[in-house]
Amino acid sequence: MYNLEELQKLINERISKEEFDKEPYLLYKPIKYTLDTGGKRIRPALVLLACNIFSNNIEPAIKPAIGLEIFHNFTLLHDDIMDNADVRRNKPTVHNKWNDNIAILSGDAMFIKAYDYFLNSEFLNFKEVLRVFNKTAIEVCEGQQYDMDFENRTDVTEQEYIKMIRLKTSVLIAAALKIGALIGGADNKNANLLYEFGINIGLGFQLQDDMLDIFGDEKVFGKKIGGDIIANKKTYLLIKALEMADNKTKKDIENLLELNFVNNKKITDIKNIYNKLNIQKLTQDKIAYFYKIAINALSNADISVDAKDELIKFAQKLIKRNK
Amino acid sequence: MYNLEELQKLINERISKEEFDKEPYLLYKPIKYTLDTGGKRIRPALVLLACNIFSNNIEPAIKPAIGLEIFHNFTLLHDDIMDNADVRRNKPTVHNKWNDNIAILSGDAMFIKAYDYFLNSEFLNFKEVLRVFNKTAIEVCEGQQYDMDFENRTDVTEQEYIKMIRLKTSVLIAAALKIGALIGGADNKNANLLYEFGINIGLGFQLQDDMLDIFGDEKVFGKKIGGDIIANKKTYLLIKALEMADNKTKKDIENLLELNFVNNKKITDIKNIYNKLNIQKLTQDKIAYFYKIAINALSNADISVDAKDELIKFAQKLIKRNK
Repeated sequence: MYNLEELQKLINERISKEEFDKEPYLLYKPIKYTLDTGGKRIRPALVLLACNIFSNNIEPAIKPAIGLEIFHNFTLLHDDIMDNADVRRNKPTVHNKWNDNIAILSGDAMFIKAYDYFLNSEFLNFKEVLRVFNKTAIEVCEGQQYDMDFENRTDVTEQEYIKMIRLKTSVLIAAALKIGALIGGADNKNANLLYEFGINIGLGFQLQDDMLDIFGDEKVFGKKIGGDIIANKKTYLLIKALEMADNKTKKDIENLLELNFVNNKKITDIKNIYNKLNIQKLTQDKIAYFYKIAINALSNADISVDAKDELIKFAQKLIKRNK
Repeated sequence: MYNLEELQKLINERISKEEFDKEPYLLYKPIKYTLDTGGKRIRPALVLLACNIFSNNIEPAIKPAIGLEIFHNFTLLHDDIMDNADVRRNKPTVHNKWNDNIAILSGDAMFIKAYDYFLNSEFLNFKEVLRVFNKTAIEVCEGQQYDMDFENRTDVTEQEYIKMIRLKTSVLIAAALKIGALIGGADNKNANLLYEFGINIGLGFQLQDDMLDIFGDEKVFGKKIGGDIIANKKTYLLIKALEMADNKTKKDIENLLELNFVNNKKITDIKNIYNKLNIQKLTQDKIAYFYKIAINALSNADISVDAKDELIKFAQKLIKRNK
């Protein structure tokens, strides 16, 4: 069986070989640019890993894996317009390097290309797999909309927040595993257990991301520290801080949220409040909670010990990452 | 056999019954709003008509027909952001009524929904049909990109322009016919002849649209007259005018194009030049030329006289339309 790093490398090489030097130049160049800026290739590697758990032949899963990665990058491209994010992976975002119109349209084209990769692959249960992909795609949009809705609210509950990140982040990681499993020939029970594993690892992954936004190292993280705070994103940390704060501290937080301009003091003040309320520890506990549910789902799957070990290794890596 | 008006009515009723009152509200409300503003439902009616030519059972084609119409409306929604268009079908566009972010994201969701309708339909050659749809979708994006590229050029040739509108407009009309035909059980030869018919009617349709933008009646047309001129769109009329003009007139046109603000005088001056150069007649001749090629393709198809008559009626109506 391949390990995840091998599959990340394999899929990265395959993606870098994909040709996008077509006319019209301004449609395809931003797609190539986006795909070449890399990222960790976790989702497509998970497609291949899950396929490999049930089948020795991962070839039929490669194009769907690339399709899923292209879809993921499409969502980042459009999100960056909506979030007004100028930098991703240490490089200018597409709407920043070109303009909004180019970013909208090349994003649309990327998304269509994602389906192309599914359509150009060969495996038996095509419609079933594409249904999983399509359901996931609409959920990711729903998640992004909830995320934007939350920007104008200060009363977002933990439960609402978890629902949002499940949609925005977890379902795609879960779908990567389920799609790979189905292509590899898994039955529904096992495909769904891998899905559940993916959902909970995805939730932990997002909480870790929330934490890195404020407690991370900018050079390692590749994004500006405090970006979520500047954008008034309702992160898990902020929601817990509002929940745990006494009336005075809560008022302090609300006043800070009203500062609607780029302000380093806003970031450090919020960070100090998080430290005072022990928010980092609370977040780590919640990550551990999701991790436990994920491992429990995994233990119920009828797959080899090697496969379980590889998935556990992945889960631990994702949750302990610093970028 | 159904006629086109019956199918437009039938599909319109089906679309109006589709439920989009889901959470998150700001994602689904603009989709419902866009679909409810109507339009002529030509493309989905063509899917059904083409299916009906080869089969008495049009039921399997209904969901793909709705999917195609949703896709078409998605492209309009995103195009309206890119073109800065504030009104469509006499109503505020989505980015105008809500904002750009809502328009980007609900457009994305609409596009995914389009695939949902294909995925939830039942017919045999699913992958083949979805390939036609997907190829068409990417071509429409290419067409939109060429259209935007042309805005900054004054040397666009007639040939380049025809290529652009083939991609931006014709392929979707052609694909509607081909998809309907394939679902109805047509062989490739006949499906492709209907496709060719659609391409050429689509080209005529777009030239008619170019003409209505300047020679149309604003109240009937439902869009602001001269919108293409204000946006410096390279229309067939403008390209022919630049081609036919003497040096002085050409200079006049180029000076007018440099006025980059909303200006009614710009519109009337350009219109006067079109009249002087007899551009309306040239455009009508070109429409007649495409019409002839379309009818020729149709005459080679192995379909009933009734079917041919219905398609000819549609072609004539589309080309003589005033809105």
